[in-house]
Amino acid sequence: MVSFLEDSPRSLRCFLRQRDDCPGGAISTELCQAVQDSHMWVLLITPNFLEDEWCTYVMHQALAEGPMSNRIIPLAQNLSLSQYPKELKSLIFIDLNRNPDIRGYNRLNQTVLHCK
Amino acid sequence: MVSFLEDSPRSLRCFLRQRDDCPGGAISTELCQAVQDSHMWVLLITPNFLEDEWCTYVMHQALAEGPMSNRIIPLAQNLSLSQYPKELKSLIFIDLNRNPDIRGYNRLNQTVLHCK
Repeated sequence: MVSFLEDSPRSLRCFLRQRDDCPGGAISTELCQAVQDSHMWVLLITPNFLEDEWCTYVMHQALAEGPMSNRIIPLAQNLSLSQYPKELKSLIFIDLNRNPDIRGYNRLNQTVLHCK
Repeated sequence: MVSFLEDSPRSLRCFLRQRDDCPGGAISTELCQAVQDSHMWVLLITPNFLEDEWCTYVMHQALAEGPMSNRIIPLAQNLSLSQYPKELKSLIFIDLNRNPDIRGYNRLNQTVLHCK
């Protein structure tokens, strides 16, 4: 997904934790700074996302930063309705199982461009 | 605050750095052990806390231990909103200026008991 967004002609700049954070910095500070510095917050919610406390931490930080800012774009993949986070229930999400691969990513790209 | 929590009938056991750490031990090891051994992590955030690197170190260690564990209870005292650490923005905190002394401490005690 990140490659799709970053490749030409889309050429969006993404922050990806393991790739873009600064070794030696405090994890929480790095993530918060990334949330603050980002125009949009894309949450790719999978069963792994829900089990990773740093992923849910970022979700909550993004919500605390702007719960109704239109900057949060949730994507769901391989998730049952009951697993979907109740905190995001009021936001429209992109279901990657119904919009597989390029179709879902294109929708994401359009949304980001539209909100710029 | 520590006296209030430790006195009867509350009788909670607290770890207080200057009182409870082991002389001769490495500071970071002592603090990390205390974080690992504690049921809850109470962060009394004041301007002094923000200036003390060991205090912010403990905050980051607690976050790394369980960012969404519900074990972190931030308290703020004499702090403007802009001074409040961004890393804790998504967690509900007790404002000791709005809940002075016993009222704030009682809220803290109730929270600790509730989370046991």
